[in-house]
Amino acid sequence: MARQALGAALVGFGYWGPNLARNLSASADFDLLHICDLSPGRVAAARGLYPAVDCGSDASHAIGDDAVDAVFVATPAVVHHRLAVQAIEAGKHVLVEKPLTLDAATSDDLVARAAGRGVVLAVDHTFVYTGAVQKLRDLVNEGDLGDLRSFDSMRVNLGIVQPDVDVFWDLAVHDLSILQYVTDRTPVSVSATGMAHAPSTHASTAYMTLFYEDDFIAHVDVSWMSPVKVRRTLLAGTRRMVVYDDLEPSEKVKVYDAGVDSPETSEERHSTMVSYRTGDMIAPKLDSNEALSTEIAHLAECIRGNSVPRASGAMGASIVRTLEAATVSMARRGAPVDLKAI
Amino acid sequence: MARQALGAALVGFGYWGPNLARNLSASADFDLLHICDLSPGRVAAARGLYPAVDCGSDASHAIGDDAVDAVFVATPAVVHHRLAVQAIEAGKHVLVEKPLTLDAATSDDLVARAAGRGVVLAVDHTFVYTGAVQKLRDLVNEGDLGDLRSFDSMRVNLGIVQPDVDVFWDLAVHDLSILQYVTDRTPVSVSATGMAHAPSTHASTAYMTLFYEDDFIAHVDVSWMSPVKVRRTLLAGTRRMVVYDDLEPSEKVKVYDAGVDSPETSEERHSTMVSYRTGDMIAPKLDSNEALSTEIAHLAECIRGNSVPRASGAMGASIVRTLEAATVSMARRGAPVDLKAI
Amino acid sequence: MARQALGAALVGFGYWGPNLARNLSASADFDLLHICDLSPGRVAAARGLYPAVDCGSDASHAIGDDAVDAVFVATPAVVHHRLAVQAIEAGKHVLVEKPLTLDAATSDDLVARAAGRGVVLAVDHTFVYTGAVQKLRDLVNEGDLGDLRSFDSMRVNLGIVQPDVDVFWDLAVHDLSILQYVTDRTPVSVSATGMAHAPSTHASTAYMTLFYEDDFIAHVDVSWMSPVKVRRTLLAGTRRMVVYDDLEPSEKVKVYDAGVDSPETSEERHSTMVSYRTGDMIAPKLDSNEALSTEIAHLAECIRGNSVPRASGAMGASIVRTLEAATVSMARRGAPVDLKAI
Amino acid sequence: MARQALGAALVGFGYWGPNLARNLSASADFDLLHICDLSPGRVAAARGLYPAVDCGSDASHAIGDDAVDAVFVATPAVVHHRLAVQAIEAGKHVLVEKPLTLDAATSDDLVARAAGRGVVLAVDHTFVYTGAVQKLRDLVNEGDLGDLRSFDSMRVNLGIVQPDVDVFWDLAVHDLSILQYVTDRTPVSVSATGMAHAPSTHASTAYMTLFYEDDFIAHVDVSWMSPVKVRRTLLAGTRRMVVYDDLEPSEKVKVYDAGVDSPETSEERHSTMVSYRTGDMIAPKLDSNEALSTEIAHLAECIRGNSVPRASGAMGASIVRTLEAATVSMARRGAPVDLKAI
Repeated sequence: MARQALGAALVGFGYWGPNLARNLSASADFDLLHICDLSPGRVAAARGLYPAVDCGSDASHAIGDDAVDAVFVATPAVVHHRLAVQAIEAGKHVLVEKPLTLDAATSDDLVARAAGRGVVLAVDHTFVYTGAVQKLRDLVNEGDLGDLRSFDSMRVNLGIVQPDVDVFWDLAVHDLSILQYVTDRTPVSVSATGMAHAPSTHASTAYMTLFYEDDFIAHVDVSWMSPVKVRRTLLAGTRRMVVYDDLEPSEKVKVYDAGVDSPETSEERHSTMVSYRTGDMIAPKLDSNEALSTEIAHLAECIRGNSVPRASGAMGASIVRTLEAATVSMARRGAPVDLKAI
Repeated sequence: MARQALGAALVGFGYWGPNLARNLSASADFDLLHICDLSPGRVAAARGLYPAVDCGSDASHAIGDDAVDAVFVATPAVVHHRLAVQAIEAGKHVLVEKPLTLDAATSDDLVARAAGRGVVLAVDHTFVYTGAVQKLRDLVNEGDLGDLRSFDSMRVNLGIVQPDVDVFWDLAVHDLSILQYVTDRTPVSVSATGMAHAPSTHASTAYMTLFYEDDFIAHVDVSWMSPVKVRRTLLAGTRRMVVYDDLEPSEKVKVYDAGVDSPETSEERHSTMVSYRTGDMIAPKLDSNEALSTEIAHLAECIRGNSVPRASGAMGASIVRTLEAATVSMARRGAPVDLKAI
Repeated sequence: MARQALGAALVGFGYWGPNLARNLSASADFDLLHICDLSPGRVAAARGLYPAVDCGSDASHAIGDDAVDAVFVATPAVVHHRLAVQAIEAGKHVLVEKPLTLDAATSDDLVARAAGRGVVLAVDHTFVYTGAVQKLRDLVNEGDLGDLRSFDSMRVNLGIVQPDVDVFWDLAVHDLSILQYVTDRTPVSVSATGMAHAPSTHASTAYMTLFYEDDFIAHVDVSWMSPVKVRRTLLAGTRRMVVYDDLEPSEKVKVYDAGVDSPETSEERHSTMVSYRTGDMIAPKLDSNEALSTEIAHLAECIRGNSVPRASGAMGASIVRTLEAATVSMARRGAPVDLKAI
Repeated sequence: MARQALGAALVGFGYWGPNLARNLSASADFDLLHICDLSPGRVAAARGLYPAVDCGSDASHAIGDDAVDAVFVATPAVVHHRLAVQAIEAGKHVLVEKPLTLDAATSDDLVARAAGRGVVLAVDHTFVYTGAVQKLRDLVNEGDLGDLRSFDSMRVNLGIVQPDVDVFWDLAVHDLSILQYVTDRTPVSVSATGMAHAPSTHASTAYMTLFYEDDFIAHVDVSWMSPVKVRRTLLAGTRRMVVYDDLEPSEKVKVYDAGVDSPETSEERHSTMVSYRTGDMIAPKLDSNEALSTEIAHLAECIRGNSVPRASGAMGASIVRTLEAATVSMARRGAPVDLKAI
């Protein structure tokens, strides 16, 4: 017997909402019932694409519909908390666009509320659902890399200087979600620096280093001001190193059978300097399904099984806490900020 | 009438010394008279390659030779100061391998002594003499880039974990020399972080952000622990951006006619996000002479004209001061360190 | 006063038809009235996406509709001729998917019929409408390259071995359209070779060299059997060379201020061998509009102004003639085939 | 007991000779006794670098020296035959710079003479001694690729238009040596085309397709007229495909677990088109010794063991025969030329 589809309401039909709508309407797990947006033009656009879906401007009406099991919040981040609270308190499961909220306190509040009401709270950290990031996590979990030593991610291109947030909240949020999902670790402090390329704007190029309880550290370099686009993450373990380059068309993940030992003698030192690699490199075949489609199916599973999604509210809150600490550290020119202080 | 060649003594014939010897012996400006090394094997190697040159282990003998005008110090950094002092006090011009010394105090001392004795003190920051770096400086000086906003340099590969210094002193020293020569600016403080991949070793992956009196900032990312080799520097101005990729065989410098303006409206914002570049890209033809050969000829000119070399003692001392501050900041997990405090 | 939209019928809703449908329905120039396909499943798919369009299996009905001004034929190539004849004889303008037909005789027939009936006959050589190819043509027309000497195009990837045609008809058809539009030249003979990687199949890797009345020659290298994807065209003139790499995300066209002169003396010869480039390289900004959208708008203009489209029936017939000759030459292991003999 | 070094004479100290001299003088297998060149300047250069070696202009004197076991011929190709005959008839082993001679008849003559005198005749096809090409051969021999289907090699850059030979003899000679060593096959016919970019010069861009007794075919694309440098060879078998890119700094050889099957149904066809790769890619670690050093040691072994070198006279003659046939075919615009007819 076929399972019944879950009723879905989508709030926000701006930049990302249409992608959610397309995947929800193609999914057998969900029945897209409502699309809401405050802009009449966006409502008209939604109605044109989805004539069978109720499209309007009243989110409360959609969230309150008894046929709705899950609410998808794709509005500007500033109203994420208000809308998610409304949905949770109405007993709905919620997926919130990233970042979960704009400060740790409200994110923690959502996590607590969802736990209290027994609903699933997921955050739309889409990268976590790609075949490449899943492969990174598998490599770590299976011990192929040895002990993790460092994570280094660069995400730069010529982007738009956003009026409301700095580049950490726009781009580093992706790297932090990959970092957390792949390593299953929570940082203890952060040092961040950055610059605004135009006066009176937010930082458009920024760097953060995350410290952990052991010696593992992570670095994230993000920018809207690079004429060359880079999307590259390096994960170094004691036994192997992995490079994940999201711009590669097919070989996005490369595993290097390489490590560097301290030289014993100066003779050995010179011979080692000559050779860059010490073993084979393997680019494993990756799952090539569209991440958002995987994510939607996974969310349905979590709702039905009452399980925790890969990109959970707790993960989303941890990322928001890190971003908030990084913003504080950046204002202090790199002085480290303890994450427990946020 | 042909000018007489300058007498040269080379102290240190290990890793870099042979390159100096080869260029000195090919130069019409210098007459290589002595090669010294403490290792008998290296002395024998030098003698085999340069049968006409006096090769031995006694640096004092070579430095004291009246026929010697200039001393080239290519020993381990720990003895740079002692040997350079000896040469300066003997009235010789000196070129010292980078880094000039291992702390700002001794570097400053060398600068003061050379000024006092009226001899040229140069540091072997070879990158400064490449066609690519010279082009970067020309672009800045001619105003093509507008106001400089940021400098971001990455220098990573699978290298050797050196026993005596961290990766800043081995690799970032290059980026700092390029940064200083291209921008003619001196930082005021630095925030640095890093990690050692093996216990009880120096940092093998490290990051530093340099702050200046105005809003310009610089970032350097160096590592011996990357299976992918990267040598890339981005210089962003208000009018144009430049990418210098030293691994490109011919088009090392690319000038992008690109800048990012803050969007006025959300309509404009979406349309701008679609397009990455806003103008042409030009890869100018570069001078392809070997940097070390250019450097040797330049040094001869400076000695004869009593002028300051591109990579002067003062520049070398400034770089050492920055490296020292970065080491302090790294130990404090990124807390900014004032360069005047070093 | 707004111009009235042209009535459009789309015949064929398989691989490419949906792209035409999407662009036609988004265009203000056309009013998509009919979609036809022989497969009931494809008709249902069309109806789901375009509920307002008449969708069915009867092409004659659609072509015969008085409200239809233009017919878009996106069926398998084997029925292109029959459907295009039907449309032309009904007085409709026609755009036919590439290749125009599968032999020169039927292509010539369509050209003659369209001329006789005074309707526009266009072929869907989409590359001709990209910003990159338009830039190549502009560079040639403005004389920037000097006299054209050679054209060399590679289009390889791991593709599907098609059951009905060889790789020339699937891939080289693109290179030939680019070649013809950019250079405005018609070849006089062709030498071709190729191989089938599996028994009893058509060639999956193939090469052709085109000869012209003067010394200019062109070479096309296509394959379905390359694990590395390449889409690169080199156009060499006496003054400059251009590389068009369609896989580059932003700098698809690079103009090299480079040429090679015969050396006079052996001294000069050695010095020239050292240096690869003799001038700057420029990557000009390109028009980034979607090619198919540009093509649809251009077709409407041609229909309204009764002018010849960039990718005309005559160009399409010339390309089919070349492909046919290449097939003959390939069977003769490269023996040249005169195009007038086809 | 140490084996005695073989006496060596080097004839020709122009472009390539100095590399042979450097490797011979560093080799324990050979004792470099003579260097000859007709140019007094080159003799002086040799003398400066190798004061202990007899340097002069008289090749007969050097070849006739009883202490000489092996003669290394690195002169212009036009005198290869005369000098090699002289050496063989004097009972010396010979290594001849590539190409062996400029026509098949004289190459065959050298092979016959060397066999008659029982001396080793080797050709300096250096690529055959690289770790990358050895790996290709190993992969083929171990059956990893399945049955070989095709070989496709591109070797283009902005080079010098040579006054005496076309681009086949300068560049394709490398690809042919790799092809022959890796596949152990001899072609039966060749179709070639090409163009001269300047009037009255030899072809500077040229293409050849080689046919074999079975369905395997090979294609070589060479040019002095490409602003982009490419050195890439694709070898496709029924089970795996290999790409050898000589410009990659470390991962020169990539093995793709990929093959393409003919689709059964149109459904399968569409799904297959979506995915480029069907398995992992592996870049095996390669031997990174300098090829010329490996080659010199191998030659000494062959001389001592009276065995056939990897790049034998017979291989060299086969390559010359192919080049000669390609030149004939090119003049006939691709008409295939039977190699037995040369």
